[in-house]
Amino acid sequence: MNPEERLYADFAAEDLIPLWTQVGDLMPEHPKPKARPHVWEWKTLYPLAERAGELVPVGRGGERRAIALANPGLGGTPYATPTLWAAIQYLGPREVAPEHRHTQNAFRFVVEGEGVWTVVNGDPVAMRRGDFLLTPGWHFHGHHNTTDAPMAWIDGLDIPLVHYTDTSFFEFGPDQVTDVTTPSVSRSERLWAHPGLRPVSALGATPSSPIAAYRWEHTDRALDEQLALEDEGHPGTVEPGHAAVRYTNPTTGGDVMPTIRAEFHRLRAGTATAARREVGSSVYQVFDGEGFVTLDGEERRLSRGDLVVVPSWCAWSFRAETRFDLFRFADTPVFEGLRQYREEFV
Amino acid sequence: MNPEERLYADFAAEDLIPLWTQVGDLMPEHPKPKARPHVWEWKTLYPLAERAGELVPVGRGGERRAIALANPGLGGTPYATPTLWAAIQYLGPREVAPEHRHTQNAFRFVVEGEGVWTVVNGDPVAMRRGDFLLTPGWHFHGHHNTTDAPMAWIDGLDIPLVHYTDTSFFEFGPDQVTDVTTPSVSRSERLWAHPGLRPVSALGATPSSPIAAYRWEHTDRALDEQLALEDEGHPGTVEPGHAAVRYTNPTTGGDVMPTIRAEFHRLRAGTATAARREVGSSVYQVFDGEGFVTLDGEERRLSRGDLVVVPSWCAWSFRAETRFDLFRFADTPVFEGLRQYREEFV
Amino acid sequence: MNPEERLYADFAAEDLIPLWTQVGDLMPEHPKPKARPHVWEWKTLYPLAERAGELVPVGRGGERRAIALANPGLGGTPYATPTLWAAIQYLGPREVAPEHRHTQNAFRFVVEGEGVWTVVNGDPVAMRRGDFLLTPGWHFHGHHNTTDAPMAWIDGLDIPLVHYTDTSFFEFGPDQVTDVTTPSVSRSERLWAHPGLRPVSALGATPSSPIAAYRWEHTDRALDEQLALEDEGHPGTVEPGHAAVRYTNPTTGGDVMPTIRAEFHRLRAGTATAARREVGSSVYQVFDGEGFVTLDGEERRLSRGDLVVVPSWCAWSFRAETRFDLFRFADTPVFEGLRQYREEFV
Amino acid sequence: MNPEERLYADFAAEDLIPLWTQVGDLMPEHPKPKARPHVWEWKTLYPLAERAGELVPVGRGGERRAIALANPGLGGTPYATPTLWAAIQYLGPREVAPEHRHTQNAFRFVVEGEGVWTVVNGDPVAMRRGDFLLTPGWHFHGHHNTTDAPMAWIDGLDIPLVHYTDTSFFEFGPDQVTDVTTPSVSRSERLWAHPGLRPVSALGATPSSPIAAYRWEHTDRALDEQLALEDEGHPGTVEPGHAAVRYTNPTTGGDVMPTIRAEFHRLRAGTATAARREVGSSVYQVFDGEGFVTLDGEERRLSRGDLVVVPSWCAWSFRAETRFDLFRFADTPVFEGLRQYREEFV
Repeated sequence: MNPEERLYADFAAEDLIPLWTQVGDLMPEHPKPKARPHVWEWKTLYPLAERAGELVPVGRGGERRAIALANPGLGGTPYATPTLWAAIQYLGPREVAPEHRHTQNAFRFVVEGEGVWTVVNGDPVAMRRGDFLLTPGWHFHGHHNTTDAPMAWIDGLDIPLVHYTDTSFFEFGPDQVTDVTTPSVSRSERLWAHPGLRPVSALGATPSSPIAAYRWEHTDRALDEQLALEDEGHPGTVEPGHAAVRYTNPTTGGDVMPTIRAEFHRLRAGTATAARREVGSSVYQVFDGEGFVTLDGEERRLSRGDLVVVPSWCAWSFRAETRFDLFRFADTPVFEGLRQYREEFV
Repeated sequence: MNPEERLYADFAAEDLIPLWTQVGDLMPEHPKPKARPHVWEWKTLYPLAERAGELVPVGRGGERRAIALANPGLGGTPYATPTLWAAIQYLGPREVAPEHRHTQNAFRFVVEGEGVWTVVNGDPVAMRRGDFLLTPGWHFHGHHNTTDAPMAWIDGLDIPLVHYTDTSFFEFGPDQVTDVTTPSVSRSERLWAHPGLRPVSALGATPSSPIAAYRWEHTDRALDEQLALEDEGHPGTVEPGHAAVRYTNPTTGGDVMPTIRAEFHRLRAGTATAARREVGSSVYQVFDGEGFVTLDGEERRLSRGDLVVVPSWCAWSFRAETRFDLFRFADTPVFEGLRQYREEFV
Repeated sequence: MNPEERLYADFAAEDLIPLWTQVGDLMPEHPKPKARPHVWEWKTLYPLAERAGELVPVGRGGERRAIALANPGLGGTPYATPTLWAAIQYLGPREVAPEHRHTQNAFRFVVEGEGVWTVVNGDPVAMRRGDFLLTPGWHFHGHHNTTDAPMAWIDGLDIPLVHYTDTSFFEFGPDQVTDVTTPSVSRSERLWAHPGLRPVSALGATPSSPIAAYRWEHTDRALDEQLALEDEGHPGTVEPGHAAVRYTNPTTGGDVMPTIRAEFHRLRAGTATAARREVGSSVYQVFDGEGFVTLDGEERRLSRGDLVVVPSWCAWSFRAETRFDLFRFADTPVFEGLRQYREEFV
Repeated sequence: MNPEERLYADFAAEDLIPLWTQVGDLMPEHPKPKARPHVWEWKTLYPLAERAGELVPVGRGGERRAIALANPGLGGTPYATPTLWAAIQYLGPREVAPEHRHTQNAFRFVVEGEGVWTVVNGDPVAMRRGDFLLTPGWHFHGHHNTTDAPMAWIDGLDIPLVHYTDTSFFEFGPDQVTDVTTPSVSRSERLWAHPGLRPVSALGATPSSPIAAYRWEHTDRALDEQLALEDEGHPGTVEPGHAAVRYTNPTTGGDVMPTIRAEFHRLRAGTATAARREVGSSVYQVFDGEGFVTLDGEERRLSRGDLVVVPSWCAWSFRAETRFDLFRFADTPVFEGLRQYREEFV
């Protein structure tokens, strides 16, 4: 060994690593994610979930029959991106996913089906196509299918971020959901889902939204109104032909949960969005219609249910063949809070 | 003159006043407002407004046919309280109240009638019974009556506070309203009045709510839900039999305007509210039903349209004979911001 | 009486006042304060305070031997402006001003003398020339003169605003101060007056600064450094030749108290400040040097100890004959919080 | 293959991973970090840095002669914890570390030596024993040694978090520092390091502290005062015999940078701190004295310069043999912002 070799060996023996051999990879000129832009097709996903429904029981221990998008760049971890988890969850007829709670923030988005109720801290929340449902960190929750048909939906969580940063707490709840009633709206909605109104009995800001379900009819109407306003010559859309709403916490006006932003986008047929990239990652699911996504220059066709993962600083845009409805979630609140957020149009 | 008299004369000559002769009045042990608790009856107010409609033109210069509650303790000023202005405004058939803007924050509340549109920064806003409408500071606004019947409503502003603190700016706009269309909902509502949703095209917090009108059907439903939840054994009401919502700014979750809090309260027949007092003043208007208010121990009967002024630190409570609906506005945001707010149950 | 006269009489009988007869005065195009720009001279003030020291006892009831600037436009109230109180307080040899607390926020600024300790919630705070001392709302405080010489200083409070808005609470404390020791620095300073450091034992934001005294040596050095940086070609001053520091709450970086901003300005000899006006009022005291103030176009000569009152929207500027040191306090935080603040250069 | 095996194979083929096989590891009942509690000894570190000084040039490309603590649980990454980077940086006589900037937030802490100036956005900042220096994200910075003796210090950054979340931007600056003057205090300190004072020329909140250096004499005095207050029977220390200050951003009162908390702790001889654990990780460096740390039940002796890494939810406490001075930094602001912070005493 020459003196340099000996030095590096001594570094290693003492659990030390020099910066100078690593700086380029560690601190690149712009984000160079290992996560890759990727599309998962619903026509593949759903049948696999069905087969899991036949072969794999749901219950205590496994907790959920959820199948995660595993980004091909992330070396076999069940992560859509380094911060975000996205999975299809499948519940067979009359099945129950037992109650638990965890510090991970979670939501569900329903691209098709109905008949399952999610019970959040004892409040039963119906799930229907187009609904966006929250189970914020440390809220007990379970799911039960009240029908003779299966149902599947998308789960989004901050599992990868929480795992990486060692902040997970988890607690089991009852094996059955704590309230088996099946109201069409949850108590949380009855208290909170009135535009611009809040109950005087529950003031103050909460870290996450108290609204357990954002219903499709409201989202749909809000998007239609933006396009109608555009037709009438008034502001409202993000760019021509592109309407978008953000789901918010009515106690703050900010994002629904501390780590997750959620939005719904509607493009008129023929519309193309401006290509941009931003710090942080996001996942889209096609809710309706046909179109294309371009990810760092590569175009992919999309149909109902397809899921698109956009890593940090990857340039992306959409092009709508028909009216094109897209649900989106992202980790942006994390980077806005840490003052690391940037975006640029490309 | 003895030396003391000479001293006091010299003080006066030099524009000086000693504290020690004044401290008790200046700095009382608890608020001792000059404003008095008082009730104005709608059956008196409305006919006077009608007579004004016949005798007094509305238009540039006078600006508004508004008749203000002049607190009997405030020495002939047109102030409901030291901070709040409350007036009945009356617009005859086809009349127009010309456009202007001012730094004073304003709202309208409609206890009866319809047919007038308020145009706020070019956006026509229909006025109907039960609606709560905003014209925040420095927004241009005018009113026009599109019918052959008169209409009256309540104006609430922070005129006294703005006047006292010398912060008024005022600018004339066009003599006619800038948009004479009569849509049933305003553009602001189409963009903003969807529960928990905001347009991605308009992010960030604004000092005042972007919702120009909070519609009665939403308020009514939210109150009904609170009482229904109470019947089902769940939280939601402020106290037994007492439902209440606060109008909020969806960009912050806070009050609709920097100086004004607005709420709607519903009491079941037979309910009495807990007596309390707080720093800052408020005004109630009976929207529906019959009942009583007790103000510093004195009870007064109330009917639809009656207005009640509650000065700072005056103890008050309501008792409902029938179902009893009350609109309320208050200056609380001012004192929460200045860290002077206190309340106590008595 | 004609019908109109009868209408106005009926308005009056029912405690009503029409807007249309008042709107111009109530809602002017820009602030038109009744308060007038005014200068009080120290050479007049101090001897009057001395005479009060001989003739008027200090103690429980009168509470303080404080003589307030009574703005000649404000009709005999002891108010410098509608929001601000400014007074000279005088304490004879060995005298004690008894303890009390009130919701009004207060500070002291010392233009000359020493030997008095203000005891704030039990913490004795020495008073010396150039020091700025806080007694925020609801903190017990008393003063005692430990020497055989009298001492005078300036009190600043939000008494007028608190009085007008009916938010005063007041409570008597002991007749003697609760700690008669005379340390050169207070415990609050020992905990908090270290640049950029806070005690881990007291985290969180407090409405008012926990620093009871801002010492002259720090203020003086900070101003000198700004001028030195300017000499070296670096930013730091507000405008050429004009250094200024703001006293802040180290738990927030914001103003020292919710209603009061305090600053210290230093002008090089020969410097003139840009004329500007702003919403809200302020009071200056000359700490050192000779110069001039121009108030809405009228110039007045100023010497050490002189006090200048600048009402809302009054244009003002200073001109320094010698190095010119000015203490300033203002009600700006109130109007920033209410979103009514504006300023313009004229 | 049986149907289950085939299902799992198909999952893999489609970049899918089921939750139910992973949930226990992914979402543990409490944080189970891979990072291990560990101690690095200064007497080992420093000689290795010296040897690197002889063998490895510093300059463009390698950028810094910094040797990172590589947590033995983190599989060969140069990370102290999943979020924090800690390294010893060594600069030989007259050497220059060239200018660059990056979105990673950085600080230096000096346990011994002097003679190097860090130039931050053109402002030369002297480095001396006990000083804590900031180079917040996207500030240009370089170092140059002005003496004939080497100097070493500790670098702390959020490199692991930025790398994991793909938020790194990096830009080269000049090869030489842009200002070779050697003032004893930086311009930033001359503007900002006055207790409770801020320049009126630079208002508003900034994400990171504008103070480039927190000097030892202030830290030392603040700690002494806390212990003196304790001796006098007044609050101030964190617990008996344990003084602590937090370095703060004077524009907000909060942490110095969005991702990093920094503190200094002083224990009297014989003091033991209460054992506690918290979400998030931290690194301590012994500044002076002798003592012990207990990490999840295992005690280790510590001397000047030794570095201790405390992973998330690891219980830790200190015991002081002599007066024991400890510098500390942590990622707590990240988890407070994400609402994931918890702590408990054990």
